[in-house]
Amino acid sequence: MSMGLLRLLRGKKASAPVARERLQILLAHERGMRGQPDLLGVLREEILAVVSKHVMLDPTKVVVRLERGDEVSTLEVDIEVPNDIDRKRVAVA
Amino acid sequence: MSMGLLRLLRGKKASAPVARERLQILLAHERGMRGQPDLLGVLREEILAVVSKHVMLDPTKVVVRLERGDEVSTLEVDIEVPNDIDRKRVAVA
Repeated sequence: MSMGLLRLLRGKKASAPVARERLQILLAHERGMRGQPDLLGVLREEILAVVSKHVMLDPTKVVVRLERGDEVSTLEVDIEVPNDIDRKRVAVA
Repeated sequence: MSMGLLRLLRGKKASAPVARERLQILLAHERGMRGQPDLLGVLREEILAVVSKHVMLDPTKVVVRLERGDEVSTLEVDIEVPNDIDRKRVAVA
């Protein structure tokens, strides 16, 4: 992974103090000549399913963006994890 | 997700022509005051298991980096998908 990409993330000082818990997931698929055209579309649901086993997901706080390019497709998932008050609201919904 | 992060990835012109198929996965977990300390350690194996259902993984071509910070932890998985010649070699191994 390019250093720039990682420096961007690591350098990102958490908004101090970090009140909210947040999970960002980014996938990039360079397909080459014979890669699967919709690998990220397939992985999207399964990765969300894995995450939801460990993190309470509030659908209104999950942003998913899937961009299909000729050679590079990207899947971006941005999850704000509900705090205790939200958790009760989500549990009731 | 910050535009910079995405521009970096999307702007990344695939090495022309892209002979190899490649999947990059990046997770960033901002924990906040009460997030799970080792969420990425837990997600790592399960995400690799999901990917391996759809992509032939050659262990020698999978790079995993997990960095635990106080507030932000990052998990980086860089997978080069074997081409047909490699696939036979991996299948035999």
